[in-house]
Amino acid sequence: MVDMTLRDGMHAVDHQFTPQQMTDIASALDDAEMDVVEVSHGDGMGGSSINYGFSAASTGEYLDAVAPELTDTQLSVLLLPGIGTVEELDLAAEKGADICRLATHVTEADVSEEHFEYVTDRGLEADGVLMLGHMAPPETVLEQAELMEEYGADAVYIMDSAGAMLPSDVRDRVGLLSDELSIDVGFHAHNNLGLGIGNTLAALDAGASTVDGCLRGLGAGSGNAQIEVLVGVLEKAGYDVGPEFFGVMDAAEEVLMPMLTEDTMPTLDNDSLMLGYAGVYSSFLRHTRRAGERYDVDPRAILTRLGEMEVVGGQEDLITDVASQLADGRDATADDD
Amino acid sequence: MVDMTLRDGMHAVDHQFTPQQMTDIASALDDAEMDVVEVSHGDGMGGSSINYGFSAASTGEYLDAVAPELTDTQLSVLLLPGIGTVEELDLAAEKGADICRLATHVTEADVSEEHFEYVTDRGLEADGVLMLGHMAPPETVLEQAELMEEYGADAVYIMDSAGAMLPSDVRDRVGLLSDELSIDVGFHAHNNLGLGIGNTLAALDAGASTVDGCLRGLGAGSGNAQIEVLVGVLEKAGYDVGPEFFGVMDAAEEVLMPMLTEDTMPTLDNDSLMLGYAGVYSSFLRHTRRAGERYDVDPRAILTRLGEMEVVGGQEDLITDVASQLADGRDATADDD
Repeated sequence: MVDMTLRDGMHAVDHQFTPQQMTDIASALDDAEMDVVEVSHGDGMGGSSINYGFSAASTGEYLDAVAPELTDTQLSVLLLPGIGTVEELDLAAEKGADICRLATHVTEADVSEEHFEYVTDRGLEADGVLMLGHMAPPETVLEQAELMEEYGADAVYIMDSAGAMLPSDVRDRVGLLSDELSIDVGFHAHNNLGLGIGNTLAALDAGASTVDGCLRGLGAGSGNAQIEVLVGVLEKAGYDVGPEFFGVMDAAEEVLMPMLTEDTMPTLDNDSLMLGYAGVYSSFLRHTRRAGERYDVDPRAILTRLGEMEVVGGQEDLITDVASQLADGRDATADDD
Repeated sequence: MVDMTLRDGMHAVDHQFTPQQMTDIASALDDAEMDVVEVSHGDGMGGSSINYGFSAASTGEYLDAVAPELTDTQLSVLLLPGIGTVEELDLAAEKGADICRLATHVTEADVSEEHFEYVTDRGLEADGVLMLGHMAPPETVLEQAELMEEYGADAVYIMDSAGAMLPSDVRDRVGLLSDELSIDVGFHAHNNLGLGIGNTLAALDAGASTVDGCLRGLGAGSGNAQIEVLVGVLEKAGYDVGPEFFGVMDAAEEVLMPMLTEDTMPTLDNDSLMLGYAGVYSSFLRHTRRAGERYDVDPRAILTRLGEMEVVGGQEDLITDVASQLADGRDATADDD
């Protein structure tokens, strides 16, 4: 089990955890015998920038704050090829990271080939992450995961980045990979459809051997699987769980919560629900709202249509086209008004 | 689909919705073509008392506020035999209720026999609710549901009152009842294990034909299934959903949310997690905390043990026994200290 509080959880605090806060959280997670903690800017190493938001400290400072706290817990870092560079990999290796997760869009595993080589050359465990996993059918996800396995991945995680999967979607993808790959399969949930825990349970049921979560359900958007809840649920379901239940609960409520304000807590509001329902990235929200006003169309209808078109980041120019089409369609059938 | 915002949601606001607020919420739900709305004190009609907390208005005032707003949406009331009386049933019938749900502990369906007779005699649909459904094995739940069917129930709901079920627990119980009963089977989730949506989906998958939820996940403890999310999830999963997705979202965010303060929103904190994990009622929390302090034992260990003993309300006197036993057990193995 991988705790993401100090990586995906960074999104919820605008990447502003201080090194001291990271020390405190990592120490509590190590006490609770968490298997792995991941530490990086929310968008991975190298993410601290005008594009993705500056973090409160550098990757080196964060790793220095966390590494000495960990006894049996492994230290993971995240790198998205294109955002992070080999310099960050060097730094992570030097600072004591045990694992580097390499994340690409679900259909672009091939951009990670040289990164896998570099990570494994440094003696770190190299895991692959396929983001926005709902955007490709199970067979495609398998092909991409097989590429990562070929590059030397020790595990491949399917990431439901938009929180758009149903339990059946999870079972189909995780089940196929578990059957066909000879390496570990992992799953990373988001809670946009209220299925953070339900989908993680479905993944384990379908053969996943490692899953992600965050203390108190922190994370981008409506957050990740709430990890202390996940530990309790898995104990109840009879799984052999590494982390210690009460210890993870303590890390959540006694260590993390005093650092947060009400408005940093992820909520399942209409915006995050729509992102999960439509299966699109949060960057579309603002633009669809503006187009909705301009064309007098419900922005949720625009998001739904964009989801059907399986748009990805960079295709924001399609938004006004869709809004205009929907407006025309409505006018054409509204002659009676 | 039954919206519980004006009944189970009353717990989250200490039963203080005003009649005008009920009017506004019911009207929005009717606009959204919700199948049924349930309106009562959180503990059912007659619940307004020193024991369960006084509501802001009477049952009659609430029904007068809601009934005229409903066009196609049906009006349900809840009655727990022992709390509510036949006088309240008369009132509900007079005020235009379409359905009366009769709720008993999962092993005490027999106390509802005469109430079913009375409800059906008045021409109302009489549905049964088996509370704390996790506390009895599927075969026992079936026996109790068969009693309610025999008494004239049009449907029987399994209520996961403590939010203690896993999807497999839900499938086992709902599946058996769906196979064996000739009436509709319903499911009512709580979110203590983060499975409000996941369990409701499991229930529908196992044959349930009606399910409960609340706008924005309101409800006792960590809340019910978040009903606007549920509608979106079911549409996505291909179910033929009655209520209109965007309309239910609007009811949640535009009508309900402005009535609430941050601290009325249900949260999945350590307390509610422990209740789901141990499968005990919230009334035990305060007592176990006090016993934990007195005996220097983690109150969560006491709750876990009480859950294994399957305690029910009224057995609070067992708490100090358990705390004392746990303290002795620890002392006996702590000679090295």
